[in-house]
Amino acid sequence: MVIRYPNGKPYHTNRDKPGAKKQGAKKSLTHKNRGMRLEDDINQSIEYYRKTNQAIIHKKPTPVQIVNVDYPKRSAAKITEAYFRKASTTDYNGIYKGHYIDFEAKETKNKTSFPLKNFHQHQIDHMKQCVDQGGIVFVILYFSKLQKHYYFKAKDLFIYWDNQFKESKKKSIPLSEIKKLGIAIQIEISPRIPFLPVIDKIIQNND
Amino acid sequence: MVIRYPNGKPYHTNRDKPGAKKQGAKKSLTHKNRGMRLEDDINQSIEYYRKTNQAIIHKKPTPVQIVNVDYPKRSAAKITEAYFRKASTTDYNGIYKGHYIDFEAKETKNKTSFPLKNFHQHQIDHMKQCVDQGGIVFVILYFSKLQKHYYFKAKDLFIYWDNQFKESKKKSIPLSEIKKLGIAIQIEISPRIPFLPVIDKIIQNND
Repeated sequence: MVIRYPNGKPYHTNRDKPGAKKQGAKKSLTHKNRGMRLEDDINQSIEYYRKTNQAIIHKKPTPVQIVNVDYPKRSAAKITEAYFRKASTTDYNGIYKGHYIDFEAKETKNKTSFPLKNFHQHQIDHMKQCVDQGGIVFVILYFSKLQKHYYFKAKDLFIYWDNQFKESKKKSIPLSEIKKLGIAIQIEISPRIPFLPVIDKIIQNND
Repeated sequence: MVIRYPNGKPYHTNRDKPGAKKQGAKKSLTHKNRGMRLEDDINQSIEYYRKTNQAIIHKKPTPVQIVNVDYPKRSAAKITEAYFRKASTTDYNGIYKGHYIDFEAKETKNKTSFPLKNFHQHQIDHMKQCVDQGGIVFVILYFSKLQKHYYFKAKDLFIYWDNQFKESKKKSIPLSEIKKLGIAIQIEISPRIPFLPVIDKIIQNND
């Protein structure tokens, strides 16, 4: 059933709304929406942690190359031509109990392994630099068909990432190994993805 | 003299280029360019620190509210309507020797005091949250007419910020007090604004 406003327009929850009206190729729209659920859940979680003063983590704005801006009199500057740029870092960073936190959240529809193509070399490079400086760096891997989230240390990711260019040539991380090396995060209501208790363990084990 | 490309188009250095062609009100252009020199100098400095693996600090992308996107076939998605949003954090954050670093860089043409109107309540709130979590949080105050940069601790800024709403009502920080509480940063070639040695002092003094 479609819920409608009194004016007849259909009601969309935030989760349905991609934040932008789309035109043209439908494929892009589908592609763009993939991952919105995970992003929403992470955003809700970091907002909860901020509001409760537990951790100050923000999502970085989408990097955009601005080409043309109109400055109409008496109204806000309007960007009329811009393009998406590739991010040079991960999406999320911040601070928790004095520790620098840096992570990326990615999802797959696969059921048995996580494809490495979800990551990019520059993100890996950035995560390596942050690990070298002593940050707590990780990825949240979401298997959407299994509804399972895993905390996976960046250090472990690097091994699989680097190996794909060497002997193994394996382009994904088997779920069995993610279960062994990673830590499952049980979804809750608020925060939906409670990753701070996992970080507490990491800090405790000086890992 | 204007240097021109072979096609006759004038050559602009990165410093001249505001990153966007402007239309309409000239005032906005002037206002927008104010502070570009400082931003360039900070960007050059953090890039230098990243390349030399001394600190991993990035400028956050400008937050933009995307309203309309075209997906032309066989070419990149084009944003055709978007608006600037207010940032909910500071512009710069990252990690240095295991410490979370968070700062903002602002400039004034004033010669005797730094106007507090350069900051916004939400930035102050964000900086307070980061200080509470144990981050190294500061502002770089630039007096453009004097060509002087100062490292000024966020904790000190909070006092002046909060006081403006209380008894003092003072809307600026006198330069004399910035000289007393802050630390002058001598400009160099690379990095242009060497702020890491100042942070080293702060770490040493457990400040």
